[in-house]
Amino acid sequence: MQPRSDLNGEVEAMMALAEELYPICRSITGNGVRQTLAILQRHLPLEVNEVPSGTEVLDWVVPREWNIRDAYIARQDGTRIVDFGASNLHVVQYSQPIDMIMPLARLRPHLHSLPDTPDWIPYRTSYYAENWGFCLTHRQLSSLADESYRVVIDADLRPGHLTDGELVIPGESKETVLFSCHICHPSLANDNLSGIAVATMLARYIGSLRPRYTYRFLFIPGTIGSLTWLARNEDKVDSITHGLVLSCLGDAGCMTYKQSRRGNAAIDQIVAHVLRHDDAAAHRIRPFIPYGYDERQYCSPGFDLPVGCLMRTPNGEYPEYHSSADDLSLLRPESLSHSLAVLQRIVAVIEGNEVYRSRNPKGEPQLGRRGLYATMGGQRTASYDQMALLWVLNLADGRHSLLDTAERAGVPFAAIRAAADALLATNLLEQASVQPHVLSKGP
Amino acid sequence: MQPRSDLNGEVEAMMALAEELYPICRSITGNGVRQTLAILQRHLPLEVNEVPSGTEVLDWVVPREWNIRDAYIARQDGTRIVDFGASNLHVVQYSQPIDMIMPLARLRPHLHSLPDTPDWIPYRTSYYAENWGFCLTHRQLSSLADESYRVVIDADLRPGHLTDGELVIPGESKETVLFSCHICHPSLANDNLSGIAVATMLARYIGSLRPRYTYRFLFIPGTIGSLTWLARNEDKVDSITHGLVLSCLGDAGCMTYKQSRRGNAAIDQIVAHVLRHDDAAAHRIRPFIPYGYDERQYCSPGFDLPVGCLMRTPNGEYPEYHSSADDLSLLRPESLSHSLAVLQRIVAVIEGNEVYRSRNPKGEPQLGRRGLYATMGGQRTASYDQMALLWVLNLADGRHSLLDTAERAGVPFAAIRAAADALLATNLLEQASVQPHVLSKGP
Amino acid sequence: MQPRSDLNGEVEAMMALAEELYPICRSITGNGVRQTLAILQRHLPLEVNEVPSGTEVLDWVVPREWNIRDAYIARQDGTRIVDFGASNLHVVQYSQPIDMIMPLARLRPHLHSLPDTPDWIPYRTSYYAENWGFCLTHRQLSSLADESYRVVIDADLRPGHLTDGELVIPGESKETVLFSCHICHPSLANDNLSGIAVATMLARYIGSLRPRYTYRFLFIPGTIGSLTWLARNEDKVDSITHGLVLSCLGDAGCMTYKQSRRGNAAIDQIVAHVLRHDDAAAHRIRPFIPYGYDERQYCSPGFDLPVGCLMRTPNGEYPEYHSSADDLSLLRPESLSHSLAVLQRIVAVIEGNEVYRSRNPKGEPQLGRRGLYATMGGQRTASYDQMALLWVLNLADGRHSLLDTAERAGVPFAAIRAAADALLATNLLEQASVQPHVLSKGP
Repeated sequence: MQPRSDLNGEVEAMMALAEELYPICRSITGNGVRQTLAILQRHLPLEVNEVPSGTEVLDWVVPREWNIRDAYIARQDGTRIVDFGASNLHVVQYSQPIDMIMPLARLRPHLHSLPDTPDWIPYRTSYYAENWGFCLTHRQLSSLADESYRVVIDADLRPGHLTDGELVIPGESKETVLFSCHICHPSLANDNLSGIAVATMLARYIGSLRPRYTYRFLFIPGTIGSLTWLARNEDKVDSITHGLVLSCLGDAGCMTYKQSRRGNAAIDQIVAHVLRHDDAAAHRIRPFIPYGYDERQYCSPGFDLPVGCLMRTPNGEYPEYHSSADDLSLLRPESLSHSLAVLQRIVAVIEGNEVYRSRNPKGEPQLGRRGLYATMGGQRTASYDQMALLWVLNLADGRHSLLDTAERAGVPFAAIRAAADALLATNLLEQASVQPHVLSKGP
Repeated sequence: MQPRSDLNGEVEAMMALAEELYPICRSITGNGVRQTLAILQRHLPLEVNEVPSGTEVLDWVVPREWNIRDAYIARQDGTRIVDFGASNLHVVQYSQPIDMIMPLARLRPHLHSLPDTPDWIPYRTSYYAENWGFCLTHRQLSSLADESYRVVIDADLRPGHLTDGELVIPGESKETVLFSCHICHPSLANDNLSGIAVATMLARYIGSLRPRYTYRFLFIPGTIGSLTWLARNEDKVDSITHGLVLSCLGDAGCMTYKQSRRGNAAIDQIVAHVLRHDDAAAHRIRPFIPYGYDERQYCSPGFDLPVGCLMRTPNGEYPEYHSSADDLSLLRPESLSHSLAVLQRIVAVIEGNEVYRSRNPKGEPQLGRRGLYATMGGQRTASYDQMALLWVLNLADGRHSLLDTAERAGVPFAAIRAAADALLATNLLEQASVQPHVLSKGP
Repeated sequence: MQPRSDLNGEVEAMMALAEELYPICRSITGNGVRQTLAILQRHLPLEVNEVPSGTEVLDWVVPREWNIRDAYIARQDGTRIVDFGASNLHVVQYSQPIDMIMPLARLRPHLHSLPDTPDWIPYRTSYYAENWGFCLTHRQLSSLADESYRVVIDADLRPGHLTDGELVIPGESKETVLFSCHICHPSLANDNLSGIAVATMLARYIGSLRPRYTYRFLFIPGTIGSLTWLARNEDKVDSITHGLVLSCLGDAGCMTYKQSRRGNAAIDQIVAHVLRHDDAAAHRIRPFIPYGYDERQYCSPGFDLPVGCLMRTPNGEYPEYHSSADDLSLLRPESLSHSLAVLQRIVAVIEGNEVYRSRNPKGEPQLGRRGLYATMGGQRTASYDQMALLWVLNLADGRHSLLDTAERAGVPFAAIRAAADALLATNLLEQASVQPHVLSKGP
């Protein structure tokens, strides 16, 4: 993968955004989420929603709001051994408030470390079970003497709100493309400041188009955020024709696409096509599994939305995942840039993937007199562009989308789209009424 | 393959049964079949049917009954050179009675041997063409001097009956699982005393359950037995939803499954799944061919039943096949035990393969408050059992069977069945009305 | 590939026909086409059609007729440097008449050569753009001095006719098998005198049968010929159930089949089967692309006929393609013979591929009493012919064609056809009403 030039300053903007968001202590509710959305609002006209704790959302209830001011483990002499001020990963998310002195033996079950990477702090949560705890490096844990410690978590767990951000970019059609990313992780960079940064720049890019589809961007707390959005927007669910969850888009790994539950939705075909024709050597296509990010909710059987997940290295598959080592140094400018470019190409296919019918379906139309054909015959092979013209004409039967045509021709979508534009300009094609995402897959 | 412990004495019982049945001279009719069924009746409440010779069954007619008392080839001095008393394979089955003195030249066309394995006696039959003959070792054949011999076959070929044994284990449903094995071979151990012994123990096992399906075991002469059963039970054919012919289940080879004619019947999916997740390293899946055992009849186009054939080394593919070398030494206790275990797992899938619908299909239900989820989040991967729960919930849409779910999740059926039971216990699933064996295959 | 014996003199006839046709200057119209068809009429009762210039055919117009008498480039002293008399490839086809003296600089853009093969003359056309030009060896081009030349093309481009030849061999059914080959190339041997020669002998062969299908042979100018035929015969198009374009059938390469646009038409299955069971080691199956020969027109979306293209080395893939090196030395008698034999086997499958129903579908019929079964049982395996009988009976359900049966049995069609004939003779089969080419593909 070549580093790309940053003509529009997008890479710089994505890196700056990640750096600005990194220190904030986000969780699934609370002020960290609000601060994060406020920063995003400087880039995008986000609508921010607040849903009260206790609201029933599908099988769940919006939890109490958690805000933390300070937390530490200190020796009897007051020396802080583990200090929330040094890393907001040091506290298990949604820990109950506590202020006690206790011997190590009693404290020990509340301490979490990573023995194999003794300098990293793990990231742990306990959203739905009342608990408290600290995360620390294994080196810290090993050095704890068998004495009594003061354990303080100065946090509130009180009725409040769940906060999320939403941006709708209206298109000609109400049919909607969903992009969703989670904003509930504290100081973790690849998971998911990378997703937030790329989604932000993608939304700015689409906002500069006059799109055919409507685009909906969700910046939401994981799991409870998508459940809440789904519960409150059931009337909008049917209009979602394509969707992607965005996460882990800044590391050095190659692109990974996790298919929708359907496995053969239009978005599955589109992303696979774009990745196959990407300059970057490698990519991975994975079947759906019911574990991961919010695609779990979008692809639950009662919704079964055509939503996949685009990542570089997937959750759980890079060593730094869910630890303090998933910091800003893991983000590569060229990876963020490449992820954004891939998403722009995906959008280009979604926007340009139409179904046409030839106006001269019987025999080939005479391209020569329309200036679309080499005039000197007999040469060994048709040129590339001529082949694209011939493919579009041959499959313009109202049953093949341009993407079907590109796949069968084995060329990038853009070449087929350009050929279709040339044929439209000479009045050789007409729009078919069928929508490409409802065609059965492939030729 | 590890030898298994024989807690229930099944292995010992199967070996003992094979040893007891081995010396009997069975054929497609006659007293050998009756003796065999009488012995099986000590283990199973078999119903024994007698169908008169001459009865028209489909395109065939039940043949005359064949019983043999003695047979030999003797020198003029009375010395028996080939003696039925030494091996009941020495006589071509269904040989006409004869008592003649004839020169070697006239006798020779009636003698059958195996030149490549000169110490083995071949097994030959002539059910439907009037003939007589002797089978002998090639060493015996080579030593015959060019003199005259007395040739005696003291047998009856007279109107009588075709005898078979049938056991029905009623279940909640009339939908029926058929197990069929042939009982017409004389002293041949793997083909098919192994099948008889395993089927007997399998029937005892199922008899100890309260099964959902009805189970029908047929112990029948090959070809004419299945034709007779089909002709006389056409009204019961439609209720057969799964079936297996059992044969050659005691040799040292790996399991072989020959698919039903349909190739994608539920039984084909079930057996392939069980074998794929079997501890034993290797197995073979073979497409249907219209040659082999009674699956030929069950899978004839007018019936086209979902009946495959389960074997270890298939007919014709082990050197001892249809010769005196297919004796008791070929049977391995651990193979019989493993064959039975595989069949028990197949029955477990048939019995447990239901189709459910999630009662909370929109979004994931909150497993935590039902005690079904690890309370501490953020760890690298979901545990195995959690994944099984998530898979069952995700595919509980009334269109995927639990076996479909196990296949898509890539885990053994038992893990998915256990997860479904946990979800049923917390009221998260409900039965769908569709039967899994009528679902189109796969996810 | 073994050379075959030429019992019927077919190879000699094909070679002689190619030699006789080679010197004629054919183009898409004109006297060369008429001479060619007149020669073919000595072998076949061809109907010759003349369609006036200016006739509208689909999106095209039948062009003016082109006839050439002489053409050369000469030095001022009259010495001919490039002479149409030496090779009719020297003139760009459809060149406008010209008689001018011009300096090399002005002549140069009208000269075409092949720098990489400096002794070969390229073949070039300019049917639909008014132009003129010469083709010459690169050696000739390089030796041209920078002086003025007399440039003469003594040709007419005047209203006349498009000429083609058509032969219909009526069969029992109006359903039609189309064979089409182009006759518009001047002195090029493999492309397509080979196709013309093989098609001629194939038509003679079919004429000697009493075929079930109707056969239609088209000897037509490329592109405009098929467009003209399609435009004037739209009422006959629906009766075409199988078709092949024939070209490049004489070179040393292995057989290549280019599938119809449908990819799963009966002809696609048939040709693949015949090639798979051909003695010749290798063959190539290629998916349809909208470039090549007249299959482009037959497979345009408004017709979408089940027409593939049979070749040895495809157009553009052998070095001599579209140059003077595609001469008679490229034709191998054994290749022409093998191509014809393959086509005869394809016709045998088309003719013999019927759908039957067993008259005894329940259980196997008793083959023994009909003389169709070995009487001595117990042997290791069924013989080959018995297996073919069993396969035909097992799949004689009105839903499998004999070709489906051959594919599933993994044996050549002829073996299955022979078994079906034996079963028909014993009244075990009856014709099903379904046509094999409308069955969904495969078992």
